[in-house]
Order: sequence, then structure tokens, then C-alpha cells
Amino acid sequence: MSYDKLIEVSGRVNDLLNAGSILSWDARTMMPKGGSETRSKQLATLAVAARDLLCSDEMKRALDGAEAEVKGRAEDSPERRIVAQVREAIDYHERIPSELLRRKTELGSAGHDIWAEAREKADFSIFAPALKTMVEISREMAEAIGYEEHPYDALMYRFEPGTTTAQLRTLFSRLREGMLPLVRAIAEAEQPRSDFLYRNYPVEAQMGFALKMAERIGYDLDRGRLDTTVHPFEISFTRNDVRITTRVNPAYMPMSLFGALHEAGHAMYEQGADPAYVRTPLATDLVGLYAVSGVSFGAHESQSRLWENHVGRSRAFWENHFGEIRAAYPGTLDDVSATEFYRAINRSRPSLIRVEADELTYDFHIMLRVELESRLIDGSLSVEDLPEAWNAGMKDYLGIEVPDDAQGVLQDVHWSSGQIGTFCNYTIGNIMAAQLFETAVTADPGIRTALDGADYAPLRGWLNQHVARHGRRYSRDELLVNATGRALDPEPYLRHLTSKYSEIYGLAA
Amino acid sequence: MSYDKLIEVSGRVNDLLNAGSILSWDARTMMPKGGSETRSKQLATLAVAARDLLCSDEMKRALDGAEAEVKGRAEDSPERRIVAQVREAIDYHERIPSELLRRKTELGSAGHDIWAEAREKADFSIFAPALKTMVEISREMAEAIGYEEHPYDALMYRFEPGTTTAQLRTLFSRLREGMLPLVRAIAEAEQPRSDFLYRNYPVEAQMGFALKMAERIGYDLDRGRLDTTVHPFEISFTRNDVRITTRVNPAYMPMSLFGALHEAGHAMYEQGADPAYVRTPLATDLVGLYAVSGVSFGAHESQSRLWENHVGRSRAFWENHFGEIRAAYPGTLDDVSATEFYRAINRSRPSLIRVEADELTYDFHIMLRVELESRLIDGSLSVEDLPEAWNAGMKDYLGIEVPDDAQGVLQDVHWSSGQIGTFCNYTIGNIMAAQLFETAVTADPGIRTALDGADYAPLRGWLNQHVARHGRRYSRDELLVNATGRALDPEPYLRHLTSKYSEIYGLAA
Repeated sequence: MSYDKLIEVSGRVNDLLNAGSILSWDARTMMPKGGSETRSKQLATLAVAARDLLCSDEMKRALDGAEAEVKGRAEDSPERRIVAQVREAIDYHERIPSELLRRKTELGSAGHDIWAEAREKADFSIFAPALKTMVEISREMAEAIGYEEHPYDALMYRFEPGTTTAQLRTLFSRLREGMLPLVRAIAEAEQPRSDFLYRNYPVEAQMGFALKMAERIGYDLDRGRLDTTVHPFEISFTRNDVRITTRVNPAYMPMSLFGALHEAGHAMYEQGADPAYVRTPLATDLVGLYAVSGVSFGAHESQSRLWENHVGRSRAFWENHFGEIRAAYPGTLDDVSATEFYRAINRSRPSLIRVEADELTYDFHIMLRVELESRLIDGSLSVEDLPEAWNAGMKDYLGIEVPDDAQGVLQDVHWSSGQIGTFCNYTIGNIMAAQLFETAVTADPGIRTALDGADYAPLRGWLNQHVARHGRRYSRDELLVNATGRALDPEPYLRHLTSKYSEIYGLAA
Repeated sequence: MSYDKLIEVSGRVNDLLNAGSILSWDARTMMPKGGSETRSKQLATLAVAARDLLCSDEMKRALDGAEAEVKGRAEDSPERRIVAQVREAIDYHERIPSELLRRKTELGSAGHDIWAEAREKADFSIFAPALKTMVEISREMAEAIGYEEHPYDALMYRFEPGTTTAQLRTLFSRLREGMLPLVRAIAEAEQPRSDFLYRNYPVEAQMGFALKMAERIGYDLDRGRLDTTVHPFEISFTRNDVRITTRVNPAYMPMSLFGALHEAGHAMYEQGADPAYVRTPLATDLVGLYAVSGVSFGAHESQSRLWENHVGRSRAFWENHFGEIRAAYPGTLDDVSATEFYRAINRSRPSLIRVEADELTYDFHIMLRVELESRLIDGSLSVEDLPEAWNAGMKDYLGIEVPDDAQGVLQDVHWSSGQIGTFCNYTIGNIMAAQLFETAVTADPGIRTALDGADYAPLRGWLNQHVARHGRRYSRDELLVNATGRALDPEPYLRHLTSKYSEIYGLAA
């Protein structure tokens, strides 16, 4: 059967991509510094080998045969979806000229050092010429990939298929309308105390407690492990080996804890995929050439945000676990109540740096970046004018002045490698997380009761049933419609933020 | 130029093989247990991809052109050697029918569990049928690969190219003649005290001291790292990232220390390869499909044995470092002198288990295995008669009775995966180590003076000059002849053992 052949070849594609992921994990956690030069060559060879195998004559012959073989199956059967996704991925890759890809890759590796120097010197003009070329190449990419309305749609396709710039503009405008009053009211309100978060929290104890909580919510350590890195991340090498990292600051405890809960949320998405999908295209992003079971970056982020924010930062969670965190750091939290702790880890205030932003202000960082990126791509904003537009946006959205480019337009690494079109996933994840969580606790009131009793299995079960187990079988919107009855809807998220922050800051309804 | 193309393609072969090595390292050090099933599929895919790329039309076209292009170069120029090695490797792989390779691989993965059960139950009859099939397949492999005198020569080719069974018989007979009198005299002599090696040595302190000593002799940590595993090993991902492991027994200290020195010796071979050879066939075993710069398993072992035994177990080493080891374990070695320590770590007595054998008796374990393997392959010994032959050999060589198969014929993992032909490298390594060391300290007396002063740089420099930097450019025997004026010669090794053990045990000259 050609279909079996297709499964066999795509299994090898998955193996090569997973090998690349293992090499990346190693490079970020274990590799001695000398290894970086040859490691990047090894990664490049694996990526090219995976793409070549995907687009090989062997695969194409199998695909032609398989399309005929599965014609009689239901449109949403795993077999039909697998065949369709392989076809779609080959078409995608063959639309991009290899010469363009080569230019993008070369610029990407050169870009990091230029960006790092610019950030070091807080001088955007050092990075501007490279960014200009990135934007030009990204426009060429968008033209090659194709789009209906806006060239930025083509760039988002790899990360968030089906999402359009027009859609985001509508969503973001509704979010701003609902969130800005909260941000402004909090600016007038009294801040809860948070001094105790900055005490001395030994590194070992932090790692131990973070891992304990990650396990408690359901991260399976027989198929995972926790390490420390500068930036926390999750990465999987099939559902059987899904690793997370967190970062530890001995003088500020929340980082390690919420980093671990966040990444554990990502990890449970991967660990929960149907075992039958292992090594198949339903556990492989063949367009992005990344061995992942999650169906989009936004869907992935929905799971990390849900566990971090809706569970880990909830009042019930700390009513249940405050005694444990007190015991983990003997003497450190004796003068603190569970309520004070809960309010401290949820305090909100506008800040300059995206990765340090709180739950409420985070999306403004994203909305700004998406708006600027899309305007760079459609030509309505020039690279020269970018810092000014950035600073104006920060002032407009969050009311803060940007002191220099390093703390402004140069803060994120993404553009240095030409990665444009990915930021939207964070806000889509927030919206999805609230929509799924609200549906879950409404559909099954036992889930809320269980959470109140520190039992995370019912919620995990619901999420597995409606999200994780499907891997990449359904699109993000299909998943949402099947689970919640509707596509992306910002209202549950706004309800969540309004109710949570009104209560914490005692805002008038 | 076709030659440039050949270098480019073989660079990618090297990348794929290194990726496999990284996945193997991870599987042995970091991987959660859930990962093993898909990990073995990933490893298989990488190995097949590397072999397919090596034997691809792309490579063959480049090779045909390159052979013509380098014709005018010196026979031992890197370019001529590279081209010759690619040709040789393609010929080698194409001689082995893929159906035979498939049978060997399948049996190899099934064999491990059967062997483990047999060893667990100390019952050879459980393993015998699988071993019989292994032997048959190995004979088929030998016929496919080809040989002049003995089918076992064909099996050794992958590990120790050019070595013949006839050669080994002569070497081994001379070794036995020189070593047996020592073993027998020691059996009559008084053993030095060694009680203090079995005290409580905290794991952290052991790892710290082992790493410190590995660094002291020259292991470069900017391009390496030390971890713990059940069996120590060294593995490289180009010369820029060469890692070692050791094992730690809190109740017996020498394991971690000498394990680390041994593996550091291997590692310095890889770290010392000419940077110009990185990712080329001079840093890739294209026959064995293993990304390594060492020219044979025996040559590799010569470097680990040299640093472990000729340096790390020398009297001078402990006259210099005994104060440091005392300080590393406060209070533990207060009643011990440097001389007592030196004698304890060098005590010799016949034992059952190869991996625990001392410097003097180790080779008898090897000679026995090589003899039995070669007779299994030429049919002069049947699998049924193997345990009896094993036990008789242990009695004959070392004068000890084997209590059961688990401590006898079933002790090593190698045969379970069909690995036959590799054991000789350990004894070849011992012989080479002594030959190189004796030449080094004779040719440059400053090396000995430096060692006496705990300065390891001159010896390292000499070894790098004569061994490591050449990578796979010269064959093992070419290396030896260039460095010492002659091929494999057992006399320096016998002189070393005789002088060392006569002194330690006060034997008559």
C-alpha cells in the first residue's frame, strides 16, 4: 500500500526532525561552548535532510498512491488528514525557491551577532540595515508562499495557519477596549505587597518545588525532565520524551515556579497526544519542519497559559498549596498569608520588557509587535521609523516612556533571525486558554470542585479529550468549535481578566 | 571542483553520524526512560540516512571526479587519503547485501533481551540459539566483506583494519610467554594493603577530584564535560565537543578516578585532531559509520591506556598528587602513605570479570575472547562447546574456576548485538601505549622530567604531534612506524609490566 509507504517515509522525516530537536535541546542545556560552530552545521544538515526526504520522489510517489487509497474515508479521518497535510507541506516548500531560503538562512545566522551588538550598545541604527534586508526577504517569502488579503498572512501561516491580519485587527481592537479600562483603573489603585517574593530562595529548593508542582498538575516525569536555562522552554522528541526547562533567580522566586508550570502546560499537550500518532504527520509540523504534536503555536500557548494562569495563579491553587510552598522555604514566608501570596503573584503594572510582563499587560506587548510587523511587511512603516513607532505604541498602550532601544525595539531576539509572524500566538493562546477553561468548568462542574480540592486530573482529562489527544488532526479552529461551539472568541478572556483583577484590586464593577 | 563537492557531501555524512552520537550520549546520560523506543528508531534513521548519503549518486559522481583531480598529489596527502577512504568505504558497504544487514540489525535488537535474561538466570542455554544465529550471520558477513586468510580477519576490519588472526596469534603467544611468569609469581607474593580504597568517598567529592585530574592531564573542558553513567565512555561530536563519563561507587574510589583518566585519554585523542580535518573523512570512520577522528579502536585505546596506566597509575603521579587526593577526602587517607596508595591502585590478582580486571591480568580476558571468537567463526568451536572452552581458558590462563555462566561466558554485552571482532583492540591498545610511551620518554628525556614535576604538557605535545593531530590520515601501523620506527611490538609492554610489577611485589629479576 502506498499509504503505508507514506507513513514509513514520514516516520523517517519525523525522526530527522526529532534528532534536530534533541541537538537543539543539548545545545541549550548541556553543550560545552566549543561545540556551537559544528552544532549549527549539524542542525542545518538535519533540516535539509528532512525537507529533502519530505519532498523526495519516494514520498511523492507514495503520496500519489495514498491519495487514491484513502479517498473513501471520512474527510476528517486520520488517514485523509495525514495525506492532505503531506500534500500541503510539499506544496508549501516547493513554492519557496531554494535560493531565497538560502539567503534567509545566511542572513539569519549573521543577524544574531549584529542584533546582539546593537542591543549591547542600545543603538538601533546598528541593526537597521540587517532588519531592512530581513523585511525585504520576508516580503519575497510572502509573495512566494502566497496570500489572499495581506502579505503578513503568508508569514503567519507557518505558525498560526489560517489566521489573517484583518482577523487580528478586529480581535485586538475588542481586547484593547476591554482591557485598557482595567489597566487604567489599576494605575490608580493601591498595589498589594510583594516584598516577600524578593527574599532569598535557594536554587535547589526552587528547582525541587517547581518540579513538584509541575508533577502535581500532571507532567509525567517518566517521559520528561526539568533543567535550567536562561530562557525557559519546552521541547519534545515524540510524546515519549518531552522536556522542560525553567530559570532560577535566587532573589526572586516566581520565575522558576511559573516558568515550570507554564512549560509543563506545553509539555502535557505533547505528552497527551494519541500514541497511535507517534512519528506520523499528526505529530509532525511538516510545514514548519518541527516535530511537534500541537496544531499551532497559539493552540500550544493556550495549554501553557491555561495551566500557568487559570490554574497556577488561581486563588484555589494557593489556598491548597500555600502550606507546601511555606514548608519548601522554611522561615521565608512566615509573615505572609495565602491571600497576600495570591495577590502578590498576580499584581499588575505596565513594564518595558515583554518576557517580564504580567498576565494583564502582556497582550499589549504582543499587539504592538503584531501591528508593527504587519506594517513593516505591507510597507506602511519603514524600518527607519520603527523605533519611534515602538516608543509611541508603548506610551499609547501602557503609558510608559521607553528610555532606550535596548529596553524597547531591540529587546526581542526574533527579528535577528528573520522570524516575523510568530508573536500573535501568545495572545491567541491567552484567548483560547480562557475560552477552553470557561467551557470546561461550565460543561462539567466537577472540574471546578476538583480544582478546589487540588485534584487536577478532571481538568487534565477534559483538555486531553478536547485538545491534546488529537495532535495535529484538527485545525486550531476545528478544535475550538468542537470543544467550545465557536471559533476564537475574546469574551471569556475579558471576563476572566475583569473578574480576577477587579477582585484583587477592589475595582468598582 | 568535484573534490570540493566530495568534501561538502562527506561533511553532511559527518553531521548525520554526529547527530546519531549526540542521540546516543543523550540516551545514556539524560533521557527519561519513556524515550527508548522512539529513540532507537531515530538512531536507525540517522544511520541509514548517513549510509545512503555516503553511497549516493551525488557522492559517487563527486568521487569519480575527485579521483582524477587529486592524482598528482602525494600518496599520503590528506586529499589522496580522503578520496581513497571514501572509495574504500563505498566498496565496503556495497559488498554487504542490504537483506543481510537487515537480518543482522533485527537480530541485534532482539538479542539484547535474550542475553539479559540468560545472564540474569546464569543459563547459557537460553542465549545459545540466538548466538548460533549471530555466528552464522557473522560468517555470511565475513564472506561478503572478503578476506585473504581467515574469516575473522574480515570481521576485525571494521574495528582494527589490517589486523589478521595469524598476526594476533603470534603477538598473543609472546605476551603470554612474558606475562604468565609475572602472574604466577604474584600469586605467591604478599598483596599490598588496599583497605583504604574501600572507605566512604562521597560522590560529589569523587566527581570533583576525577574532573580535576582529567583537566590536569590536559582534557579541555571548553570542549568537553563529565557526567556519570553505569559504564564509563567517551564520545565526540567533532573535536569541538568531546564528552566523557565515569561511574562512581561511594564505597570504592578508584573507579571514578581511573575511569575519568581513561576516558580523558580517549577524549584528548579526539580533541587533538587537526582542526582542518573537522567534518572531513579524516575525522569520520566511513566504514564503521561512526564520527571519530581516531584511526582504529586499538589506536584509540592506546591513548586511554597510556594516560590511565603509564601516567595515572605511575609512582611519579602519586608522589605529585597524593597530597591533593588526601585533601579531597578530608580524614579518609590520613593513615596512608603515597607509596601505599601507589601499590594499592596497582595490585594485581586474577579475577572473573573483564571490566574489573587489573592492568596485568586484563589481557588474558581479551586473549581468551579473541581465541574463542575466531574459532567460532572458522567453525573449529561450536556454540554448544563455548562455555566449557571459556571455563577451561580461565583456568588455564588465570588459574581460576568460573562458578557460573553469568560470571563467565555471559558477562559481556557485545555478542548480544552480534558485535564480533572488536575485543582485540584492548590488547592492541595496551601494546601501542607502551610502545609510544617508551619511545616518547626515550626520544625526549625532558618528557620524563616534566612528568616527574607533574607537567603533562610535553607528553601531550609529543602524542599530539605523533598521533592525535593526524586523525585518520595514517593507518595505525603507519602511525606507529612514523612515531616509533616499527609496527606493533609487544616488547615495550612486557618491559613495562615486568619492571612495574617486579618492583611493586619485590619479585626476583
